[in-house]
Amino acid sequence: MTTQEILHKAKGCCGALAVADTDQKNRALLAMADALIDNTDAILQANSADMDAAKDTLSPSMLDRLALTAQRIEAMAEGIRQVAALPDPVGRILSQIQRPNGMVIERRSVPMGVVAIIYESRPNVTSDAAALAVKSGNACVLRSGKDAFRSANAIVNALQLGLSQIGLPAELVQLVQDTSRESARELMTAVGYVDLLIPRGGAGLIRNCIENARVPCIQTGTGICHIFVDKTADQAMALDILENAKTSRPSVCNAMEVCLVHQDIAKEFLPKLHKRLVTDRENQPVELRLDSAAADIIPGKTAEPQDFDTEFLDYILAVGVVEDIQQAMEHISRHSTGHSEAILTQDEKNAGAFTRQIDSAAVYVNCSTRFTDGGEFGLGCEMGISTQKLHARGPMGLEELCSYKYVIRGTGQIR
Amino acid sequence: MTTQEILHKAKGCCGALAVADTDQKNRALLAMADALIDNTDAILQANSADMDAAKDTLSPSMLDRLALTAQRIEAMAEGIRQVAALPDPVGRILSQIQRPNGMVIERRSVPMGVVAIIYESRPNVTSDAAALAVKSGNACVLRSGKDAFRSANAIVNALQLGLSQIGLPAELVQLVQDTSRESARELMTAVGYVDLLIPRGGAGLIRNCIENARVPCIQTGTGICHIFVDKTADQAMALDILENAKTSRPSVCNAMEVCLVHQDIAKEFLPKLHKRLVTDRENQPVELRLDSAAADIIPGKTAEPQDFDTEFLDYILAVGVVEDIQQAMEHISRHSTGHSEAILTQDEKNAGAFTRQIDSAAVYVNCSTRFTDGGEFGLGCEMGISTQKLHARGPMGLEELCSYKYVIRGTGQIR
Repeated sequence: MTTQEILHKAKGCCGALAVADTDQKNRALLAMADALIDNTDAILQANSADMDAAKDTLSPSMLDRLALTAQRIEAMAEGIRQVAALPDPVGRILSQIQRPNGMVIERRSVPMGVVAIIYESRPNVTSDAAALAVKSGNACVLRSGKDAFRSANAIVNALQLGLSQIGLPAELVQLVQDTSRESARELMTAVGYVDLLIPRGGAGLIRNCIENARVPCIQTGTGICHIFVDKTADQAMALDILENAKTSRPSVCNAMEVCLVHQDIAKEFLPKLHKRLVTDRENQPVELRLDSAAADIIPGKTAEPQDFDTEFLDYILAVGVVEDIQQAMEHISRHSTGHSEAILTQDEKNAGAFTRQIDSAAVYVNCSTRFTDGGEFGLGCEMGISTQKLHARGPMGLEELCSYKYVIRGTGQIR
Repeated sequence: MTTQEILHKAKGCCGALAVADTDQKNRALLAMADALIDNTDAILQANSADMDAAKDTLSPSMLDRLALTAQRIEAMAEGIRQVAALPDPVGRILSQIQRPNGMVIERRSVPMGVVAIIYESRPNVTSDAAALAVKSGNACVLRSGKDAFRSANAIVNALQLGLSQIGLPAELVQLVQDTSRESARELMTAVGYVDLLIPRGGAGLIRNCIENARVPCIQTGTGICHIFVDKTADQAMALDILENAKTSRPSVCNAMEVCLVHQDIAKEFLPKLHKRLVTDRENQPVELRLDSAAADIIPGKTAEPQDFDTEFLDYILAVGVVEDIQQAMEHISRHSTGHSEAILTQDEKNAGAFTRQIDSAAVYVNCSTRFTDGGEFGLGCEMGISTQKLHARGPMGLEELCSYKYVIRGTGQIR
């Protein structure tokens, strides 16, 4: 099927899901989960073909992302069941007023319609995204990266069996059958067919969508996350937080990339930081890239200017010394990608200034930036992390996959 | 100043307004209103130059939109004062939860940052848009149409005086000094400088923005609004509503363009409709464009297929006969622009089906589509009517000019 045909089918059937009740959607999700398990063999076979084809071109960590096992498929099914257990985001009455003329105006949450997701090589995104779309009443059109195509296709085939079993159109979850750049472009420009486009992947994909999308699109992902260690910070706490934010999972967008330290404590604190992140971590030391003031105090590479504008996604940290909170906030405003930033301080006034003035999706006081995540925020799930300000900001859960409409009831009112 | 310089200044000063308190913003608005009045002469002079330049090219109704009088300037000032009286949309706590690990996660409304508005020839949009932007904590970059440029410039000069008087940067409200297509394109592609772009104007402008915008953009405006007269409709009420929806102000986007009538009442109802909209309106009869079933019953032009896809913005109405509510909803789904649709019925089941299934910003039961308006919805004001589903749908008031951020306070939590 061509991408055009897939979009046409999605548009044609999304109404069926928009008016489905919660029970029907949950039964669909449970059937999708069961179908994944029932089709484990077919999925593993497809995944093994993907792995074979990619083994010479992908890095070991990318291959690990791509690999499926029976256990990982079970985890995907469990993820779908968890989405079934979440509250239905559709049909909530967001507000209701009666106007002086007697009209009752209700704002009611409704699905977007057709949600398109362009992603890369994690096969589990296929089932995650499909589950979130179905629960929020949206048809979804998925476009996987080339490396994961066979796996994604086998997963979608299984999910479609689940949908059909409970009498919903299989076309509610579809995979674009073409992984060329052209198919991504078709989704980006499908005005009238795609109500929301979500790119999930690296900076190149996001930039491509921003440049080329004509349909409503959410900018996700890139995180150059900063942590500012104020002069009043609890230094033991700061070391725990910095180590966690940098090393607990360096490859994700909420990991810290830049640490700024107040000059009044730099001489005392930076050697402790060096010990914690470098000396104490024999097996996996963090490479520090230091501005000149920091380099005067501790050993490490000298930072190049671009090191303060780089999402390393690795055991690398840019470290700078700042005069005060004002300079820290100015640095962050210039270099942040609007994802997550933190201040570590015991000074309530500085905490307030930081949370008011820093213009990022998540602004932290005295905890790790690693918490910017749908699950950690109590949303139960996540379709991605928005780093722009339209519609959704930060982790996008089920509610963020909905729009609303006004329903107005009258008794003959005219204007 | 070039558009780039204007954008740079807007970005540089929007932080000042983002942290301004309600009182300071309201004082700024009142000073802006006073400055408009104080500068009435300069504004009228500029407007008179605009009128002279446009008198041979614009239609009388367009010239009337462009014309200012001391009274209209007073009305603009009064509009600003009304915005000052509205609740502050910034700093609302949208949700607050405590996580099991003790972190408190708060979702707090914040300004967008820089809002760009591209509009056409109504000078009053200049002060309306500026007032809404300032109240919602946003810097605004305005780009007026060529015909209204001198007027808009004089208005912005006055508004800037008001801002300066209370110590806020004048650059919070700026007018692009170039009315070429190029300046519109610069706004549309100012990634990193424009947080929200709102086009206000005709279908050509909207299409241009959708085609070319790289910054987050709201699709506004075009309204091919339908009213379906069900077989159980109160026919006297229906005639009042239809006349109001078509003739009270045909040039606006919430006016009805298409009327669909249930076949069971067509023979009885269509002659009444013809009498009300044509025969009884000697001075301003509505031109009916009839599908073949309607043409068999009442006199009128035969509709061409495109008449059911046209925003007439005039005393013209396309009329069709449908078999039942299902066919009415299918017609609307195919032809609607997602603005406003109504069902006139006494059948509660049909009212429910219509409000659930029709996918438009505003769905009415037994009242006129003309109510789709920020003021009529109790929002106090409006920046435009969104006909898309991302971020805002229907009338956009102050809350829709805001985003939110997460503020997370902890005591050393790590993940």
